[in-house]
Amino acid sequence: MRYCSKCGSDQIDFKVPDNDTIKRYICSACDSIFYTNPNVIVGTICVKDDQVLLCKRNIEPRFGLWTLPAGFMENSETLQEGALRETKEETQASPTITSPYAAFSLTHISQVHLFYLADLRDENFGPTSESSEVELFYEKDIPWDQIAFPTVTKTLEYYFKDKKEGVYPFREEGLKLW
Amino acid sequence: MRYCSKCGSDQIDFKVPDNDTIKRYICSACDSIFYTNPNVIVGTICVKDDQVLLCKRNIEPRFGLWTLPAGFMENSETLQEGALRETKEETQASPTITSPYAAFSLTHISQVHLFYLADLRDENFGPTSESSEVELFYEKDIPWDQIAFPTVTKTLEYYFKDKKEGVYPFREEGLKLW
Repeated sequence: MRYCSKCGSDQIDFKVPDNDTIKRYICSACDSIFYTNPNVIVGTICVKDDQVLLCKRNIEPRFGLWTLPAGFMENSETLQEGALRETKEETQASPTITSPYAAFSLTHISQVHLFYLADLRDENFGPTSESSEVELFYEKDIPWDQIAFPTVTKTLEYYFKDKKEGVYPFREEGLKLW
Repeated sequence: MRYCSKCGSDQIDFKVPDNDTIKRYICSACDSIFYTNPNVIVGTICVKDDQVLLCKRNIEPRFGLWTLPAGFMENSETLQEGALRETKEETQASPTITSPYAAFSLTHISQVHLFYLADLRDENFGPTSESSEVELFYEKDIPWDQIAFPTVTKTLEYYFKDKKEGVYPFREEGLKLW
């Protein structure tokens, strides 16, 4: 941040405001304080007949690697609406959400990733502008060495482990990767 | 947003960028796009000997009303770290988190509220700059008509309902209040 988005001044400091404990961008001309906070990424692990739906990224970052459909939660939507919107945008699929399944706090990038377990009840999925390939995978065929993000790997591992037990508890954890 | 925080130009549009579906602030001088996304509020429902810990707000909004300790998740912390930090800041208490308990998407203010169930194992709590009173309440003494936020009321209702059954499942829902 180089200029104040409210008054246009270039007198921007990065310091702890009064009655606060964290450094913020502050405009010394108009006294505005600018807060930045973690973003939420929402997605689904769509299941159909013992298979899960993965998509091959057609965009950066991690172009060409496989992922679960997920993306930034937007203003004015619920967590579930965001997860279903991202799933549709990346895979064309319209699954039915079963339950919240895995949440991760990623402190190094200030993100929260939340994946829902979802039932896919039809074959209406396929490539999109964001995904060059969209396919159902049995556990034995998951391309483990070509997964785009660590939280996707963890969610898939949890899923196939839970599948053997037949119970799918909600998991929530911090991931300190850097 | 009236000025670009990167280049200082006042040529700010609010429109849908290419390959997007949602209106964003865009600088026509330097082509920067500015995204805003939902914020996460994290807190606790601290339990001790059949009582829960409430604090009376010493700050706006809802000054003078009672709430569960909670506040904005900050960058570089996990959900649980944020919940414990806010609990400490508002009540002086240092409970032990038991499990994620209730999550709400509030579309009208683009917030996600997440409350953890937590055990309070000592009597080290009391007023802070943010809370004029901090007290343990039995169910019969909860000031239901003086609760600051709807998600706090719902979380307390869920808790006392679940307490009768002895099981505390994670709940996650959208709240469309406006």
